[in-house]
Amino acid sequence: MKNTKSYIDQHKNRFLNELIELLKIPSVSADSTYKNDVLKTAEVVKDSLKAAGCDTVEICKTEGFPIVYGEKIIDSNLPTVLVYGHYDVQPADPIELWDSPPYEPIIKTTDIHPEGAIFARGACDDKGQMYMHVKALEFMTSTNQLPCNVKFMIEGEEEVGSVSLSKFVEENHEKLKNDVILISDTGMIAKDVPSITTGLRGLSYVEVEVTGPNRDLHSGLYGGAVANPINILTKMIASLHDENNHITIPGFYDRVEELSKDERAQMAKAPFSIEAYQKAIDIDSVYGEEGYTTNERNSIRPTLDVNGIWGGYIGEGAKTVIASKAYAKISMRLVPNQDWEDITQLFKTHFENIAPKGVRVKVTPHHGGQGYVTPIDSIGYQAASKAYEDTFGKTPIPQRSGGSIPIVSLFEKELKSKTILMGFGLNSDAIHSPNEHFGVWNYLKGIETIPLFYKYFTELKK
Amino acid sequence: MKNTKSYIDQHKNRFLNELIELLKIPSVSADSTYKNDVLKTAEVVKDSLKAAGCDTVEICKTEGFPIVYGEKIIDSNLPTVLVYGHYDVQPADPIELWDSPPYEPIIKTTDIHPEGAIFARGACDDKGQMYMHVKALEFMTSTNQLPCNVKFMIEGEEEVGSVSLSKFVEENHEKLKNDVILISDTGMIAKDVPSITTGLRGLSYVEVEVTGPNRDLHSGLYGGAVANPINILTKMIASLHDENNHITIPGFYDRVEELSKDERAQMAKAPFSIEAYQKAIDIDSVYGEEGYTTNERNSIRPTLDVNGIWGGYIGEGAKTVIASKAYAKISMRLVPNQDWEDITQLFKTHFENIAPKGVRVKVTPHHGGQGYVTPIDSIGYQAASKAYEDTFGKTPIPQRSGGSIPIVSLFEKELKSKTILMGFGLNSDAIHSPNEHFGVWNYLKGIETIPLFYKYFTELKK
Repeated sequence: MKNTKSYIDQHKNRFLNELIELLKIPSVSADSTYKNDVLKTAEVVKDSLKAAGCDTVEICKTEGFPIVYGEKIIDSNLPTVLVYGHYDVQPADPIELWDSPPYEPIIKTTDIHPEGAIFARGACDDKGQMYMHVKALEFMTSTNQLPCNVKFMIEGEEEVGSVSLSKFVEENHEKLKNDVILISDTGMIAKDVPSITTGLRGLSYVEVEVTGPNRDLHSGLYGGAVANPINILTKMIASLHDENNHITIPGFYDRVEELSKDERAQMAKAPFSIEAYQKAIDIDSVYGEEGYTTNERNSIRPTLDVNGIWGGYIGEGAKTVIASKAYAKISMRLVPNQDWEDITQLFKTHFENIAPKGVRVKVTPHHGGQGYVTPIDSIGYQAASKAYEDTFGKTPIPQRSGGSIPIVSLFEKELKSKTILMGFGLNSDAIHSPNEHFGVWNYLKGIETIPLFYKYFTELKK
Repeated sequence: MKNTKSYIDQHKNRFLNELIELLKIPSVSADSTYKNDVLKTAEVVKDSLKAAGCDTVEICKTEGFPIVYGEKIIDSNLPTVLVYGHYDVQPADPIELWDSPPYEPIIKTTDIHPEGAIFARGACDDKGQMYMHVKALEFMTSTNQLPCNVKFMIEGEEEVGSVSLSKFVEENHEKLKNDVILISDTGMIAKDVPSITTGLRGLSYVEVEVTGPNRDLHSGLYGGAVANPINILTKMIASLHDENNHITIPGFYDRVEELSKDERAQMAKAPFSIEAYQKAIDIDSVYGEEGYTTNERNSIRPTLDVNGIWGGYIGEGAKTVIASKAYAKISMRLVPNQDWEDITQLFKTHFENIAPKGVRVKVTPHHGGQGYVTPIDSIGYQAASKAYEDTFGKTPIPQRSGGSIPIVSLFEKELKSKTILMGFGLNSDAIHSPNEHFGVWNYLKGIETIPLFYKYFTELKK
């Protein structure tokens, strides 16, 4: 590729301003209040793809939020790269913990990002990383260096389970035909330690409701004599882990892939400081499943976390009441081979079984997806590796991520192609948290690295 | 007493309308949003006491909400009854479960109240029961039948711990001097089973906060590797009861009064149907401490109930997050001899001790009060008993209530006088719950019975 650096230098400010405009739209897919903002975002993405050089761009309606599809086919004999990303974002709550409004992007410098970082919900996950691909395409088309065909599929329901996308992929095999799928929705180990994500965890997300009496009761008149749904819920949730923090749901571990000593030894080589890890989130100790390291606990081991809990009086002051109902949102991160629908059913059955007399339990599955592992000997992986070598001057490290991109395994099943996860975010970018941000350096480095993937993938394919 | 029934018949509608006006003011002491409504309610109570015949009525300022004091002294040689009540109410949440707005009183008939019941927050607890005493005074003064002196002390902080009242009582021994204290803030066993409450439980109310990481974290990237404050909170709360539902806080039961076989046998004689109890609140089974009956569990045994819990994402849809903090409001009902401040300290120490590494715990005491037991051989109890015999045609049953009126034990300590608890509400009146109500029949029966207490108490005192 020629003049990548100079092109980026020349258009840097525009690249930043375009992303900032995109980040101003609160495209929260989980909250129907933002429906119109999500739809508006799809339009902006469509226009950006058109401007970047796609020949055809369309907004594909679904039962949920639309999928933006665009393509530039230069020669049917050349390989085709399918870029996937999402334009929806996580809710911004708790809003009060943001130093600046989540939808008023601002560039500030940090210790890790001396060149500045864009602070906004979605800056890294995934608007910023998705937009790197749009700008990389712009560079290749406007300098006549696009070496192969490219297709874009940008969805608006990733943060709520990609329900519509699954259907869309199943129904559009021909349209989405490709030789490799490219995604930037993960992170890298550190700015000076490029990495390629080779594994993702699956996910099962459920909501539980425990009902006791048919109305809130006076805790004096009834306290001690009836099952308190909140006390019961805490007992039930607490029982889901044993004293070694193993998950107690019968059958939960049956299909968990056990890594070999060798593989675990390889993982252990990735640079990691437990002190820095604890300091970054201000905890005095890590916590988790006996027998595994921190990096193993958050990548190759399944988990069960309560993401939200509520019940009774949560206002100011005191209310002496026994609530009629208590609720929790619970998610399980799964490892390859665990089937999310099986696990969801195992959870449901177990949770209903452990409910004591005096309460009724309802388990509602939200969404989920399978885990994924990609081989490091594929052409796609090698092309990505060479691209990083050019722009970072070192070979990237393959790493398992604890996160989930549920549709990746679906892509393999339906489209029969491998996914390459080139992430440019950092764990410290606070995705899903207040003050999410994305380094300006990372953003531009992505735009610089991506075209090289196209180059090497096309060459290796020959 | 003469013409009680005819007077009540004649003024019945006004008695109801006056109470309805009082109930329209949302005097929620726990929520500062309602500050002005609470103050306005004090004014209305003051005017009602003046109108009912008190010679002097004043609004006594405190550091919190004011205390309305009124008195009618007819002869210093005659005994003095001190009436206590409260004009503040519990929060109305969860508001969506009310069939009619909590501050728009409406009279509807129910199976238990064929004569109709007033539905509104505070209808029974305690505006309705407090106002019976105002109307009883009006009857006695306007028919020249007041047999003794009377003092009223109506506070506005009962639902939040009566903090200011304690100080007020300590500083006004002379002003509050009396021969017996009369309170209607409890219930009766059934409309055809009059009862006098002889015991109250104490209370310790605390709020706990569990802090893990310094910000919300992505549950994929960190899940399994850090202590999740919500999971930890559920474990900690669950551990506060053992498998027999005994409370596990060291020292918690040390001073608990154990009743004799005889006393328990006496209690067991009170009419009670477990089927009706379960049906009324739609549960398939009761639940509680091993070795005790339902009526024992909610009266002579201490409890620990979570009144509210919250943390993480509780909005619509799903958010895969590990919250930085989780919270709970927890109250313990105590029995006579348990000191609420000791218990609060025992809880705090224990809860801090069981916090695992990786989280920080904060325990904030809200308020509390001591339990109380009153003898049944006192003049006050006998006077009340005779009053019920006249109006109900049967002798009332002495019963322990599971509720708490923290200041009752303070009254005994500071004013050296016994309290008589003449309650006219029913357990089914849903106090502290949505659709709180108070039977019209109960309201008028109270107004009819109270003057007879004055009569018999004065006679027995001679």
